[in-house]
Amino acid sequence: MAVVEVSIIPIGTETPSLSRYVAECHRVLQKAEGVKYQLTPMNTILEGELDKILSLVRELHEVPFRAGVQRVVTSVKIDDRRDKHLTMQGKVKAVEEKLKSAF
Amino acid sequence: MAVVEVSIIPIGTETPSLSRYVAECHRVLQKAEGVKYQLTPMNTILEGELDKILSLVRELHEVPFRAGVQRVVTSVKIDDRRDKHLTMQGKVKAVEEKLKSAF
Amino acid sequence: MAVVEVSIIPIGTETPSLSRYVAECHRVLQKAEGVKYQLTPMNTILEGELDKILSLVRELHEVPFRAGVQRVVTSVKIDDRRDKHLTMQGKVKAVEEKLKSAF
Amino acid sequence: MAVVEVSIIPIGTETPSLSRYVAECHRVLQKAEGVKYQLTPMNTILEGELDKILSLVRELHEVPFRAGVQRVVTSVKIDDRRDKHLTMQGKVKAVEEKLKSAF
Repeated sequence: MAVVEVSIIPIGTETPSLSRYVAECHRVLQKAEGVKYQLTPMNTILEGELDKILSLVRELHEVPFRAGVQRVVTSVKIDDRRDKHLTMQGKVKAVEEKLKSAF
Repeated sequence: MAVVEVSIIPIGTETPSLSRYVAECHRVLQKAEGVKYQLTPMNTILEGELDKILSLVRELHEVPFRAGVQRVVTSVKIDDRRDKHLTMQGKVKAVEEKLKSAF
Repeated sequence: MAVVEVSIIPIGTETPSLSRYVAECHRVLQKAEGVKYQLTPMNTILEGELDKILSLVRELHEVPFRAGVQRVVTSVKIDDRRDKHLTMQGKVKAVEEKLKSAF
Repeated sequence: MAVVEVSIIPIGTETPSLSRYVAECHRVLQKAEGVKYQLTPMNTILEGELDKILSLVRELHEVPFRAGVQRVVTSVKIDDRRDKHLTMQGKVKAVEEKLKSAF
């Protein structure tokens, strides 16, 4: 299991607004199976089997091109741990628990 | 107002766990004024006046060194918009509204 | 054609040095076909057909695990342009030419 | 000493070309003192005292706004090592030396 952050920036759009492209990516995510995801103010975070996530990211990368954009910068950050089962919830919980206890 | 994503990775730790360093960064954030923040599974997102955020990020970058780490890779992504008041909540809401309406 | 930046950070390596992992990744790149690459002080940049690059990146992501590392953070940034043939050299040249002429 | 990667993406530029903005950032860098820099196909890498670099990055972040852009996404990655003097050249050399020797 991996937790992966993705942000997709269309370049050369007429206005500074990107939300329509992010929304269209989330329509693709809504139909995807076996991958959890969370929209954040700076990116979308995915959780699941790494290769399933990466093929989904590849599909998301195409979304702005389908809307007529000619250039896209897609950033992906993979957090992949093999000694422990990594989940979005587990990562946040581990920090919150440490915050409750002394450092 | 800017929305800024920060992730701080200590290099050369003895174990793969990073949550204690993230928690210590959040202790710094808890004492900071004038900056909103949100912990996500891949980073922490800050909202506020850009220079205030960047000086806070500079402070956070030092946290692992105080814990004895010798190398730190800090990634920062700034989303800065001058035609509109940018907030964490506003960015997420803009996507959610587009998801409710046809694309 | 796409130009893709990749950086692979092993977590929990006990010492701050990462060059042995980067070198091992470059041994994989040396054997790869159809993809140009350039080592920079912060990452490695690849140029070629996007899907070929992404499967190579997937292979590079495994390199630290083979060396016994238990956690890896891999960052990938894709620059993909469909209106023009994008190359590493072309991107740098475009900037250098603009630097020679007035802005 | 730190080695820092910076990439500045203007949003809403109507055309996909970014080289004029990168060139204008490099005009600022040409006048800066005490910071070495290297243009790569995906970003610009800076080497020097961390706080000097970060204030220079802050200045570079404003460049697209001066050219009329309304939104800018600036990505910064800091590699900061306290056990060793980190330089762009030293980081690349360390990998090249390892490549020459067996792993």
